Amino acid sequence: MSHNTFGHLFRMTTWGESHGPAIGCVVDGCPPGLPLTAEDIQTDLDRRKPGQSRFTTQRREADEVEILSGVVTDAQGQQVTTGTPISLLIRNTDQRSKDYGEIKDAFRPGHADFTYWSKYGVRDHRGGGRSSARETASRVAAGAIARKVLGPGIVIRGALVRIGRLAIDRSRWDWNVVASNPFFSPDPGIVPEWERYLDDVRKSGSSIGAVVEVVAEGVPAGLGAPLYGKLDQDLASAMMSINAVKGVEIGAGMSAAELTGEANADEIRRGADGKPHFLSNHAGGVLGGISSGQPVVCRFAVKPTSSILTPRQTIDSEGNETEIVTKGRHDPCVGIRAVPVGEAMMALVLADHLLRHRAQNGNRG
Amino acid sequence: MSHNTFGHLFRMTTWGESHGPAIGCVVDGCPPGLPLTAEDIQTDLDRRKPGQSRFTTQRREADEVEILSGVVTDAQGQQVTTGTPISLLIRNTDQRSKDYGEIKDAFRPGHADFTYWSKYGVRDHRGGGRSSARETASRVAAGAIARKVLGPGIVIRGALVRIGRLAIDRSRWDWNVVASNPFFSPDPGIVPEWERYLDDVRKSGSSIGAVVEVVAEGVPAGLGAPLYGKLDQDLASAMMSINAVKGVEIGAGMSAAELTGEANADEIRRGADGKPHFLSNHAGGVLGGISSGQPVVCRFAVKPTSSILTPRQTIDSEGNETEIVTKGRHDPCVGIRAVPVGEAMMALVLADHLLRHRAQNGNRG
Amino acid sequence: MSHNTFGHLFRMTTWGESHGPAIGCVVDGCPPGLPLTAEDIQTDLDRRKPGQSRFTTQRREADEVEILSGVVTDAQGQQVTTGTPISLLIRNTDQRSKDYGEIKDAFRPGHADFTYWSKYGVRDHRGGGRSSARETASRVAAGAIARKVLGPGIVIRGALVRIGRLAIDRSRWDWNVVASNPFFSPDPGIVPEWERYLDDVRKSGSSIGAVVEVVAEGVPAGLGAPLYGKLDQDLASAMMSINAVKGVEIGAGMSAAELTGEANADEIRRGADGKPHFLSNHAGGVLGGISSGQPVVCRFAVKPTSSILTPRQTIDSEGNETEIVTKGRHDPCVGIRAVPVGEAMMALVLADHLLRHRAQNGNRG
Amino acid sequence: MSHNTFGHLFRMTTWGESHGPAIGCVVDGCPPGLPLTAEDIQTDLDRRKPGQSRFTTQRREADEVEILSGVVTDAQGQQVTTGTPISLLIRNTDQRSKDYGEIKDAFRPGHADFTYWSKYGVRDHRGGGRSSARETASRVAAGAIARKVLGPGIVIRGALVRIGRLAIDRSRWDWNVVASNPFFSPDPGIVPEWERYLDDVRKSGSSIGAVVEVVAEGVPAGLGAPLYGKLDQDLASAMMSINAVKGVEIGAGMSAAELTGEANADEIRRGADGKPHFLSNHAGGVLGGISSGQPVVCRFAVKPTSSILTPRQTIDSEGNETEIVTKGRHDPCVGIRAVPVGEAMMALVLADHLLRHRAQNGNRG
Repeated sequence: MSHNTFGHLFRMTTWGESHGPAIGCVVDGCPPGLPLTAEDIQTDLDRRKPGQSRFTTQRREADEVEILSGVVTDAQGQQVTTGTPISLLIRNTDQRSKDYGEIKDAFRPGHADFTYWSKYGVRDHRGGGRSSARETASRVAAGAIARKVLGPGIVIRGALVRIGRLAIDRSRWDWNVVASNPFFSPDPGIVPEWERYLDDVRKSGSSIGAVVEVVAEGVPAGLGAPLYGKLDQDLASAMMSINAVKGVEIGAGMSAAELTGEANADEIRRGADGKPHFLSNHAGGVLGGISSGQPVVCRFAVKPTSSILTPRQTIDSEGNETEIVTKGRHDPCVGIRAVPVGEAMMALVLADHLLRHRAQNGNRG
Repeated sequence: MSHNTFGHLFRMTTWGESHGPAIGCVVDGCPPGLPLTAEDIQTDLDRRKPGQSRFTTQRREADEVEILSGVVTDAQGQQVTTGTPISLLIRNTDQRSKDYGEIKDAFRPGHADFTYWSKYGVRDHRGGGRSSARETASRVAAGAIARKVLGPGIVIRGALVRIGRLAIDRSRWDWNVVASNPFFSPDPGIVPEWERYLDDVRKSGSSIGAVVEVVAEGVPAGLGAPLYGKLDQDLASAMMSINAVKGVEIGAGMSAAELTGEANADEIRRGADGKPHFLSNHAGGVLGGISSGQPVVCRFAVKPTSSILTPRQTIDSEGNETEIVTKGRHDPCVGIRAVPVGEAMMALVLADHLLRHRAQNGNRG
Repeated sequence: MSHNTFGHLFRMTTWGESHGPAIGCVVDGCPPGLPLTAEDIQTDLDRRKPGQSRFTTQRREADEVEILSGVVTDAQGQQVTTGTPISLLIRNTDQRSKDYGEIKDAFRPGHADFTYWSKYGVRDHRGGGRSSARETASRVAAGAIARKVLGPGIVIRGALVRIGRLAIDRSRWDWNVVASNPFFSPDPGIVPEWERYLDDVRKSGSSIGAVVEVVAEGVPAGLGAPLYGKLDQDLASAMMSINAVKGVEIGAGMSAAELTGEANADEIRRGADGKPHFLSNHAGGVLGGISSGQPVVCRFAVKPTSSILTPRQTIDSEGNETEIVTKGRHDPCVGIRAVPVGEAMMALVLADHLLRHRAQNGNRG
Repeated sequence: MSHNTFGHLFRMTTWGESHGPAIGCVVDGCPPGLPLTAEDIQTDLDRRKPGQSRFTTQRREADEVEILSGVVTDAQGQQVTTGTPISLLIRNTDQRSKDYGEIKDAFRPGHADFTYWSKYGVRDHRGGGRSSARETASRVAAGAIARKVLGPGIVIRGALVRIGRLAIDRSRWDWNVVASNPFFSPDPGIVPEWERYLDDVRKSGSSIGAVVEVVAEGVPAGLGAPLYGKLDQDLASAMMSINAVKGVEIGAGMSAAELTGEANADEIRRGADGKPHFLSNHAGGVLGGISSGQPVVCRFAVKPTSSILTPRQTIDSEGNETEIVTKGRHDPCVGIRAVPVGEAMMALVLADHLLRHRAQNGNRG
């Protein structure tokens, strides 16, 4: 079933294909009275925009967002949300559908081509149709509104921590360098290495996977629920909803399997401010599905794009064996542009849980 | 917000605490006319039941399930589902609440104690209350009904593939040995090693993490959706909804980040039967959110239980610093009993998606 | 699709058939820390209980409710909600399934028998199965918890305002007499008339319809939404979800069609307390989907029960023509016992909207 | 909570205000492969369009719909749905916001002005903002897609059956005349009477209520569920979700309260075709929440618009007493244009239930 709504109280419904006239989303459940302009959203969109370096797709999209509903100019002359659905529209301007003629009838191995065909029997093959990474622009736009709901006290930042076998050195982590390199790397030392490596990948028409890490600081203790409405469960769903993601981790993640109870226990002391002070964060800020007040830490693996120049064996829609080579303009490492997308998904989940928390605990202090 | 319903069309709502009179669930959306008896469910429940070896908690629960609604004896004398909600009840019989007196006012590091208190300001501290692994009995019971919906053609099996640093040897994988060792190990060779290791863990009052792998064979191509209603997204949500899970992987999982596009592409040939034949399964049976017809492969990491005998630094509910030691009866490796739970969650997700697929594609052949 | 959950944030999932071992429900989304005992719920249940006068079914059910989860004894020794799902169980004790032997294979005209069979191809014919009015006991139990969420400032009361062609005289409306007659009539003057009329109906084995009115006072302005999340929309859904209801009205209801804009306008003055004071309430307390602060007024029509002693022409499950007479124990006017059910549904809708309002407007004063 | 999504499997999410740049909706869950063009939708939209006679608002809107996603040209050159979300956009072209200057700070009695302000503290007062009847264009557009899902075998038609105290003569009912008079009247005899009456209403700057009846023929038996997923419950919700609706009836509706069990029973005979043949339709085609195969009949009352020229007493946003007169261009009888809206809501509910039925009963013949 195709149901393109994400979130329970703070909801985003996205629509649009890579090569249609436009993409967009409807953000519903936003509280009233929040200042919101197109510029607020554009800032985030520009970070995800393709064509900003030689390491991402060369498709050129202005990615200009229009707000079609849900805001009004208040008595003070400020544009604010009204509490009604916010419709966002982003025109597609640089489709080159003819690039896709050759793959019209054959399935790219590792791509949704085959399964989409199996399910629907009809598809918009151009640019991956609905499965295109282009859809993530809508997520980033909605995420910008989610950040408004969270307010300035909650800071969400993402970074690329691995490309292929080249992982960052965590001891050099510096949030300040993330914006100043084309990879969203928090480790300045690895940037030249990644540049050389990705240039090779790009020139050979290949592609490579990556790992993104998103951290939310300032999240109050208490968001989430013990089971089913778990904060980490919704983060897992959010990140796995992004195209090409194959694994999601919270805190220690898969390596939690290798820890003893003693090592895994994040011991607690009373801080100088009288508040709980944790001595480590294996939990990634989530205990029993509920935020602990520590930074919420989520990582996800993005597989290499399946659109590569190396010929691969496949079949066509008649079931005949053939070979396929994908031209068009593709990201050699689609994980790079997934960084702002991961941030947006984190913001969407936290905004949703903040509203949920208010609903159930609004009667408490 | 505490919302204890899982699934969209095939839905399970669970309820109950570790030390209340009973636990249970309501399974809603089940198609009518499926044969179903309490025995069908009991078989699965017995696999998860505690106290079956020295490697799981020594709490003794009969875990006998009662079906309170949703079935009727048909004209042929067979008990079948009616299409109305199926209410399942499992009495708690072996609570020892006094074991928990000492942890009433202090928070176990790494446990939901602290966050639960932060959120609700009131809690049932005995046995973890709602956060107890005991709740997973309801999941296993509901999963048994989900298997009925899927029918015999879809086979879901789980196995433990890692305890701490000791991973299985995949070349020795044999589904037939899973039921004949206390670890659900598919690798007979590692069993003695795990026994020695877990005996040490248990005797020292410690605990250790593990990795579970669940595989569904016979899943037809076409279940899922390109975005948001993705099969892998719902699997991530399902597995992360289980207590103590910190990471989820589909197919290659986190290691997809280290692959090139060439390596990751599961090439396709025409099989002898005329059907698509994949040469590898890095995708884990899910491409672009939709099942490909290959086995669906999901793994998840279970952290070590936080209830250990080693004293840990913590605070109490007044914020004072203290130390904590958890007595009571705990699983030294709670990942073991998570195997049938993971199978159940896989069954629930697939049953839900099978119904969704029928809804949207019922007009196709 | 059978989905037996009602409500968005404050949710009730009901289960159970008339002639199974028990009925019950799970109430999810309840805020923590509310005092709640079985006695609190029993009070409401006893008002709906059958067999309390000769004007309702003679089935005798104790309707004793057990709370199986979601509450704990707090530090002050008071039983309070924990914020986790509350499971309620009511045993069925007085089934007489043999009464239904004769209608096993024929369909009662005006009853769900025929459509249920058409849909499911299998049914529990005894006592209407899932379609039995017995299910409404679960609603009343859940409604008692909803009242706790609303608090003492919001008072919800229901009354019977019409039986067949005999409507009450509204000028004699007195809430104090509702509990002291077997009809929940607010008009003491009509009681003897209704007694005589219903005795005739009952003795002749017939049945008759009725109209119930439910009024909620003390509802603050601002609950609901302009569209789709409308308070009146959810009330319409709630009341029409009750068995045998065929029409729902808010305020002026169907007669609003006969009003001019001038007559329909509930003019507003500034009250002595400085608050808005409405001069009339054609709106029934809901304007544009949002509560106005006036009493919320909802009415619904309950059709006569289709289980009557007069033979009616029908067909059997083979399609053959036949006649049917329904024995068993039935309500001559099932609308009477619908009064506490209507109150419960009003309470459920308001509790849900109160939580929704907190979620979206929690950031306002 | 503002949640602007309607439907469970076949879903519509609407957005937009009366005086914003555009309105629109996203239709999600639509099966793939259905032929769909903008023209298909335009036909329905044109029936609802304002300014087509002197009896509706004189606002002139082209109401031209654009399809922004979810369709593709298939191999046969036909534009078909792809199974992904369908985004529809309708530009607003004839706003006259200055008409609303005078009502900026005062609340129209009987209008959402007051409650909207109470809830949100900010509003787009122009043309009623989100509460405007303009939003219903989105519903009609989505309804046109729902009709495609239902196919030509299910015919949904609406009519106006009452304006104020002037009800139609049902013995003269003729569907063929509905399109040929400005009121959607099925009774040609009442048209001159309504014309004279509405001319008076219009000239005096007043307004009047109306009743709409919607009938769906060809609906198969079996859609719906015994409880909560009831077809009539969802119809009640659908119709009450339309602005200005105050009452909803299924079949006999409120007058079912006046019927005996004998009179209410729709007796069944075996028809010449071997199928069940009902002798009457008090049930309105829905028994126990499930369609019976008879025509589904739903009626709803639309209150008079509150925007009238007669001065009414009210207060302003500061709480001061004042008088209000609403200029602007308003429908003297907004019930007229509600006819195609009611049809659309019926189509949306039936399409949703058709998909639900396939989901749960897809395994049956």
